[in-house]
Amino acid sequence: LDIEAMVDRLTGGDPRTLARALSLVENRAPEVKELVSRLFSRERSAAMVGLTGPPGAGKSTLADTLAGMARESGRTVAILAIDPTSPLTGGALLGDRARMDAASRDPSIFVRSMASRGHVGGLASAAFEALILLEASGKDFILVETVGAGQDEVEVASAVDVTVLVLAPGLGDEVQAAKAGILEVADVLVVNKADRDGADELAADLHAVAGTRPVERTVATTGAGVDALYAAIAGLEPRRNRFMEVWLWDVIQTKVRERISESALREVLKRLEARELTPYEAAEELLDGES
Amino acid sequence: LDIEAMVDRLTGGDPRTLARALSLVENRAPEVKELVSRLFSRERSAAMVGLTGPPGAGKSTLADTLAGMARESGRTVAILAIDPTSPLTGGALLGDRARMDAASRDPSIFVRSMASRGHVGGLASAAFEALILLEASGKDFILVETVGAGQDEVEVASAVDVTVLVLAPGLGDEVQAAKAGILEVADVLVVNKADRDGADELAADLHAVAGTRPVERTVATTGAGVDALYAAIAGLEPRRNRFMEVWLWDVIQTKVRERISESALREVLKRLEARELTPYEAAEELLDGES
Repeated sequence: LDIEAMVDRLTGGDPRTLARALSLVENRAPEVKELVSRLFSRERSAAMVGLTGPPGAGKSTLADTLAGMARESGRTVAILAIDPTSPLTGGALLGDRARMDAASRDPSIFVRSMASRGHVGGLASAAFEALILLEASGKDFILVETVGAGQDEVEVASAVDVTVLVLAPGLGDEVQAAKAGILEVADVLVVNKADRDGADELAADLHAVAGTRPVERTVATTGAGVDALYAAIAGLEPRRNRFMEVWLWDVIQTKVRERISESALREVLKRLEARELTPYEAAEELLDGES
Repeated sequence: LDIEAMVDRLTGGDPRTLARALSLVENRAPEVKELVSRLFSRERSAAMVGLTGPPGAGKSTLADTLAGMARESGRTVAILAIDPTSPLTGGALLGDRARMDAASRDPSIFVRSMASRGHVGGLASAAFEALILLEASGKDFILVETVGAGQDEVEVASAVDVTVLVLAPGLGDEVQAAKAGILEVADVLVVNKADRDGADELAADLHAVAGTRPVERTVATTGAGVDALYAAIAGLEPRRNRFMEVWLWDVIQTKVRERISESALREVLKRLEARELTPYEAAEELLDGES
């Protein structure tokens, strides 16, 4: 793998190189570190918007409509969807351009699903590495869509410039409860499917907790209200302070694992199982025994 | 706080002491480490069953019905519900005995909601510490219910003896997609709300991926099929090998954070923001600079 050539083609905006580089990130290839390091020192340029919320809220359709608007205003656009994945079903469950209408009409919108492989650690790194690659390839408006409300996904969605929480009426109380955790970190609250029964109640609930944050009503399938949402996003002061911190902890966690040998881990786990030492003692032993 | 007295009362089965100890765990009180260490060296005795699946699948009702069955067969029972929580709404969203019918009729079933506070790390530790406390207090059948399908929650649900994945028809494709990640680690697959339209299709889908694992059909609200599920759970060989490993990594992660000084972190983050060093370099620096 010629990293030098890849950097050149990627910064030149070649979509095939970008796609190939993102596959390396997704597969946690060892070359990623060098590639990202080479691209990392460039000046930051892209606006990164996170869309999150429960399944069924219509995040993909909303991302697509927002992407179309960004294109119309002359921006270069990418959508990165972090998907839950299953080895049994073989890869990302949502196709790269599934249900993406604007994206399928406009091939200059770069759309990519990336599987979150379910092991602890690595999701944040993979997502942030992908964002650095997208930015380096010249995209200046990047939408990051996270399915579900897992802790790591919330971390990623809340670590970008602007975080949009997408809810919809009729998903049930328990589903709405899944918004907890992300509600605090969201910059914009959205009632999507706002033409449905229950939209007024949901909007009222959100207004009650929104404080000074905007609450937008959208119908992503028709585009209604999405222009106001786009304007609300554009009007916000971007914050990126959490980006580096979340990424850094993820890298630290991965490094700590790499430094602990498999044999030391197995030995300690055996004694833990036998309850000969506590997890607190075991952790000290592994950390202090690290080379 | 008199740890000695707490250990005595807790191992004596006093529910108020147990409740108080669980609050210490939930609030990450510094005394927890000593308390859990004191109780940890006891022989393991409880069967721990994880119930997980998307919101709306009926996990709480199913946990309640299973708990009632375990009581009838003379076991001492606890239900631990790991809830997403929001500072804005103030605490766990599901009440301790909300919608729990058997539990409200039988006060000997210990029911506890525990908030997952949304910060990375600590969720697994809190859950496992709570399980050790429940076990030490004499519970021999413990149901752990996790709301949603977040990575940490999946970790916890899959780290106990038996993992039950609860799905239901009509939650939509995207919701079912949330099962990804947990599908591989589930020991028993359940189609709850099996009297609804779409149950046959969902059961067929699950059978297609289940391999030799049982697929049970239940209607938790009426109890239909829950006896067969209870028997399926009881008939499985418990595995607890992942319990200690997941807990250990969580403790290690917490310890690594404690060892990195706030000032060193701030300094490194400033240089990261300025892109003067990469996250990989920053991680090395912080880990090697630790005392």
